[in-house]
This record gives sequence, structure tokens and C-alpha cells, in this order.
Amino acid sequence: MPEELLIRNVRPAGGGSADVLVRDGRIAAIGAIEASAGAAELDGGGRLLLPGLVEAHTHLDKTFWGMSWRKHGAGPRLIDRIENERRNRRALDLDPDRQSGRLVAQLLTMGTTHVRSHVDVDTEVGLAGIEGVMAMRDRLKAIIEVEIVAFPQSGLLIRPGTLELLDRALALGTEVVGGLDPCAVDRDPKGHLDAIFGLAGKYGRPIDVHLHERGEMGAFSLDLILERVRALGMQGKVTVSHGFCLGMPDAGHARRLIEGLAKERVAVMTTASASSPVPPVKECIEAGVVVCAGSDGIRDSWNPYGRGDMLERAMLIGLRNNFRRDEEIELALDVCTYGGAKAMGLQGYGLSIGCVADLLLVPGETLAEAVVSRSADRTVIKRGRIVARPGALTEPVA
Amino acid sequence: MPEELLIRNVRPAGGGSADVLVRDGRIAAIGAIEASAGAAELDGGGRLLLPGLVEAHTHLDKTFWGMSWRKHGAGPRLIDRIENERRNRRALDLDPDRQSGRLVAQLLTMGTTHVRSHVDVDTEVGLAGIEGVMAMRDRLKAIIEVEIVAFPQSGLLIRPGTLELLDRALALGTEVVGGLDPCAVDRDPKGHLDAIFGLAGKYGRPIDVHLHERGEMGAFSLDLILERVRALGMQGKVTVSHGFCLGMPDAGHARRLIEGLAKERVAVMTTASASSPVPPVKECIEAGVVVCAGSDGIRDSWNPYGRGDMLERAMLIGLRNNFRRDEEIELALDVCTYGGAKAMGLQGYGLSIGCVADLLLVPGETLAEAVVSRSADRTVIKRGRIVARPGALTEPVA
Repeated sequence: MPEELLIRNVRPAGGGSADVLVRDGRIAAIGAIEASAGAAELDGGGRLLLPGLVEAHTHLDKTFWGMSWRKHGAGPRLIDRIENERRNRRALDLDPDRQSGRLVAQLLTMGTTHVRSHVDVDTEVGLAGIEGVMAMRDRLKAIIEVEIVAFPQSGLLIRPGTLELLDRALALGTEVVGGLDPCAVDRDPKGHLDAIFGLAGKYGRPIDVHLHERGEMGAFSLDLILERVRALGMQGKVTVSHGFCLGMPDAGHARRLIEGLAKERVAVMTTASASSPVPPVKECIEAGVVVCAGSDGIRDSWNPYGRGDMLERAMLIGLRNNFRRDEEIELALDVCTYGGAKAMGLQGYGLSIGCVADLLLVPGETLAEAVVSRSADRTVIKRGRIVARPGALTEPVA
Repeated sequence: MPEELLIRNVRPAGGGSADVLVRDGRIAAIGAIEASAGAAELDGGGRLLLPGLVEAHTHLDKTFWGMSWRKHGAGPRLIDRIENERRNRRALDLDPDRQSGRLVAQLLTMGTTHVRSHVDVDTEVGLAGIEGVMAMRDRLKAIIEVEIVAFPQSGLLIRPGTLELLDRALALGTEVVGGLDPCAVDRDPKGHLDAIFGLAGKYGRPIDVHLHERGEMGAFSLDLILERVRALGMQGKVTVSHGFCLGMPDAGHARRLIEGLAKERVAVMTTASASSPVPPVKECIEAGVVVCAGSDGIRDSWNPYGRGDMLERAMLIGLRNNFRRDEEIELALDVCTYGGAKAMGLQGYGLSIGCVADLLLVPGETLAEAVVSRSADRTVIKRGRIVARPGALTEPVA
């Protein structure tokens, strides 16, 4: 007998009420559906049905989630935060397996079914973070999908030995090659980018580069990235995270960069930071750029904020981009669903028949209202199985 | 017998656990307190004790709160939104008494005990909004305090008859004189400001001016306001709402404006808009300026967002101002509590003995964590009486 779940009376993507039949983890039918003998049933109560939310950029390995509150004392600069974190990590007892497990449980409760996490690799922590998050990923793979980026948080070339560690992380099965501010942190943009594109070529893996660099410096680094994507045929395999330079004052220059991203099919990840220049979401999407979103650090030594809620992230995208019309707010939600799925190359994502049944039920008259209200009443389904009911997972995770 | 409430085991302002005795609506004692025969008791369970949150800028009269979702279709400019709203208001059945009552119930549930609301006055709506919100204010005065600003939303001098309506609103008992963009909307900054300062003088009332004007234009309007405050001795009686010009690129000019605000004791209200230039909160406070905060429109034809949560507003202030250190996040919370109380001239506000017992109990190890977590577990006390328990008011309001 196939395993079946019949979801009664939901409104897929905000449309009219329908029943949705899930069979063997995939959407098998949508419409008015007769009860079948073996199927479990879930009453949707007229709630919206969304595809699972996609957290396309976080740092699971170093969150304080579930630990006691830790006073934030880092200085204001990027390098202050990097140094502060590395200095404190030893004293913090941040077990990456345990901490990443705590945070994915929260993400899942809020409706996220797919996560891309950057995980620190450096000459102090070595591969401990990668191994810890991999252990969590394997342990919880039935309820949430986690993709790992090997991330040189403390710099790549400025910390000899880090490149070899990234290489080993990829050999272990890390899915994505990470990079970080080729000019500002690594002081050698050509060297940095040649190194990470080299690793990507060696292992046949995609790339996700943190690019906080602003203005003309960031634009220079981005140009160097685009050159390599073009030369190496890496179209559709590269994400630029943050991309603050796309919010530079020179709108004409930003426009040319956005066109370059669209041409080389480089995705952009935004947190919609309220205190930094940010990629203009609507302009990027209209130009054909894939835009995804993430929380970035959640309750860690970088960032005290965050509840792991990608509906809240959609709201923050809306607020940052001055989205007020319904179709604009829906665009912000798209970034947190389909945009993330495209950037991560997820197969079978969505609400069509045949798609994997990774689903979120949430109240709301419309998609825009779901973003605005951010109700805590969330039911989450992973491959056809109910994994979270309002406020809690259906089964405890260790 | 005096009416007593003994609040057990709370942590005032994030300090150590204490009991708080409230007698006849005021804080009578803080410490380890013996049970008294007649006192009702409330177990705080170790929660934080905060003074009631202060919503220092909203528009109660025109919210859609509690109504079905209304699609947002206004154009992007300020004037588009003004015209759109006036055009649609007739079709909307927005009863100001009913709608303002629905929204203050929500605000109160989230921990707000004091509200300053701008209420539209124009030649179409006349004083209907003022009268409706006044009726609500009187009806609910036992559970929430509402102060009304007579607000010329559609312009003052460009709509002949509006000034006379503002005058009548003040004669009816409206507490504050409102103004709006003396250059950009009214096209006559001298005329606009002389008119509203004239009304303030006539009725002995404070002023709260919406100033969306950016850059040098806003700076010019602000200079004209400061000149009048100085000439008329209105120090401590004027608030500038939004003050986007204080986030102008010319930091030296902004600095001179901030010093002027401090000197003339003009308060600044910020929503911490993520898509506009905003007053730099820390710089303003360090210069001695009183900074308060508000939600602005909540679910209305201007703004689809908002849950009426001033803890969320504190978070948004933190995000916009890149506040990450605990003391910075506490500053954002101060803006939503003491800053609002100062701008509105509230008497007996706070957590000291003798203060009016307008209080919020919310979980959190620290004040910063309360802002970051924004727990829905809120117990609200108004003048010593429990008016809201988590998720609902203790008594229904009509």
C-alpha cells in the first residue's frame, strides 16, 4: 500500500479551497478528492498552503539557540566580529552538532523545509564544525534537508592551511564551496577567487561567496566573479550572498552589475539588512536574476536577532524594499520559497502535481496577509509526513 | 480598604527577582514583600517587569484591523497614498470609533499602555474621525490612555477650511496640534508653520509635525520649526515625526540639526523605516534629544504591515540602527518606553515607587532578549489592574 495523506480544505498559493492528496511523499492530486481507505487525513481549515520555506543562508554551527542569553560585546567592524567570535568560541562550548540541531528544529517549526548553512572552516576549528553539522544533517534528514557550504570565515589565503581544509571538507561531502570578501578580508581578489573556483572545478560543486564589500570595491570583486563564471561555464552554479555593492549609490553601475548577474545566471542572496545597502529585489528579479533570502546568523556572536522565521524574513524584505502592494509582498514571499529553491537547485519543489510534498499550512486570507500576520499557527509537512504542528515538532529531536 | 495587587517574583528592568506591591494604582513597594490580607496576587514566574510600552505615533482612525484583507494598490508617491486613501475612504466603512477600538485592544494585548494617535482632519471627513476616536478614548480610558493629534493629512493651507476644522478639533479637546510637510505638501512653509504654532499658542497645546521631507528641503523646514520654538518659548512642547532629513547624506548638516533639536528640546519620533533615511537614534540620544517611536499606520491604506507590537518596533529600531550590543538594544527599548513617555509628557511613568502601575510582564533573561524574542506571553497591568493576559484582554471591549 502506498503511504497517503489527504489534506482537506486548504488554499494552495492563496487560491480557492481544495483537497490535496499526497502519495509516497509527492503531491498526487489537487481538487475535490474522495476519501480513500488507507489515507491519513489532515483538516486544513481553509488555511493557505505554501511550499516549504527555504532558508538559503544561515550559520547553523555557531548559534546560541537554546543556550542562556549571551551579552553581545563585539565592536562595530566586520573584523571586530570575526576576531571576537574566534576568540570566544573556545570558551563557549558550542557543539556544532547539538547547536545546529536545536536551530533546525526551530526553523522547521516555523515552516522551513530546506536550509543552506555556511559552516566555519579555519585553522583553529578545523573540520569540527563541518563534521558536527554533517552528523546533524544525517540524523535529521527525514525531517529537514540541509546543504552545507564550507566557509572560510577567518579568511582563506591570509590563513595558510585553510584552503587545504576546504579541500578536505569537500572531499568529506560538503555540497558547496564558500568564499569571503576577496578584497576586504583576503587582500588578494585574484588569488582568492582562483582558489575557490579551482576547488569548485576539482569537485564539481557550486559556489556561494559572502560579498559584504560595498560600492566600487564590491563591484570590482563581483566583476571578477562574473569573469570566472563566464570563462569556466559556471552559469547557474554560483550565488553571491549579501551583495551590498548592488545597493551602491551609482545606480547605473549597479544596473550593469545586475545585468551581468542575469546573463551569467548568478543568484543573489539577501537578508534585506536594514542598516546596509542591499540588492534592489524587484529590479534584480525583473532583470532575470534569481534572488533568494536567508536569516544569516541567528542568535550568535555576530547577530543577536532572529527567530528562524522565513515569513518574518519576507516581511523584512518587504519593509526594506518599500513593498506595499500585494503583488510586491508576494514577490518577497517568492524570494523565501521559489527563489531559494532555484538558487539551491532543488528538484521537484513547488505545489504542482508530482512535486515533493514539502508543505506549510498557515492562516491568511491572502499570501500578503500570511507575510504581514506571520501567525504562529503553522503545520509543516516533509515528504508527505506531518513534522510540525503549531509550536512544536511532532517528534522530539535529540 | 485600598485596592492592592502583589506581583510576585518579577525582575524589574531585568534586575534581580523581587515582589512588587501596587496600591491604589501606584507602585507602593519593591522587594521581598509579606502577603497582605486583602491583596490580589499575580505570580510573575521570574518574568521581566517593564513599564507599559508607549506607542507614540499611529493612526487609529483609519486602520483595517479586524476587517477582511484589503488589497493594496496605491502608487509609490506620498501624494498617491494621500489621494488613494481619501478616494477610498468613503467606500470602506471605516468607522473611527469601532476601528480605533479594535486597534487599541490589539496594542494593549501587546503591552502598550499609552498611545498618541494622529487623526485625520480634512474638508471631507471633517471632525468625524476626531469625534469617533474621542468616543473610543472615553469608553476605554480605564484600560488604555490615548492622546489625539488633530492631523491635516490632506494638507492645511492647500485645502481651505482645514485650519478652521483644526481649530474646532482643539476646542473639542484634542490634545495636540498636528502638521504635515510644510514645503512638500502645503507649498508654503512659513504659512503652514505660523498657522499651527498659532493654534498651539491659542489653545496652549503641544505640536507634533509629520516631516517626511528629505535632505535639504526637510532641513529647511526643520530650521523654520526650531526658529519658532525658540521665538515662542515652546521648548519641550514640540515633536518632529519621521524627521527623514536627519538621515541626510551630509552628516555635518544633520549634526547641526540634531544639536538644534537638543537645544530647543524638540523630540523626534522614528518608526525606523527600513526604506527611508532615518534619524540616527544613538547620535540623537547622545546629543540629548528625546527620541520616541511608533508604528505609524497599522494595516491601513498606507501600510499593510504591523501587529501593533512595540517590542517588534524596538527590534526594527535595532535592525535599522545596526544595534547589536546589549546596551544598544536596551536603548531601542528605552525609545519605546521612556522616550515615548518623555515626548508625550506623561507624569508618574516608570518603575520607581510612586509611579503609576502601568506595567508589562514578559519572559526574557535580559531586556535585550525580550526585544529579540518578542514573546507572545504578555501580561499587562493598567493602573494596578490586570487588563491583558497572554493573547487576550481580560475583559472584552465593544
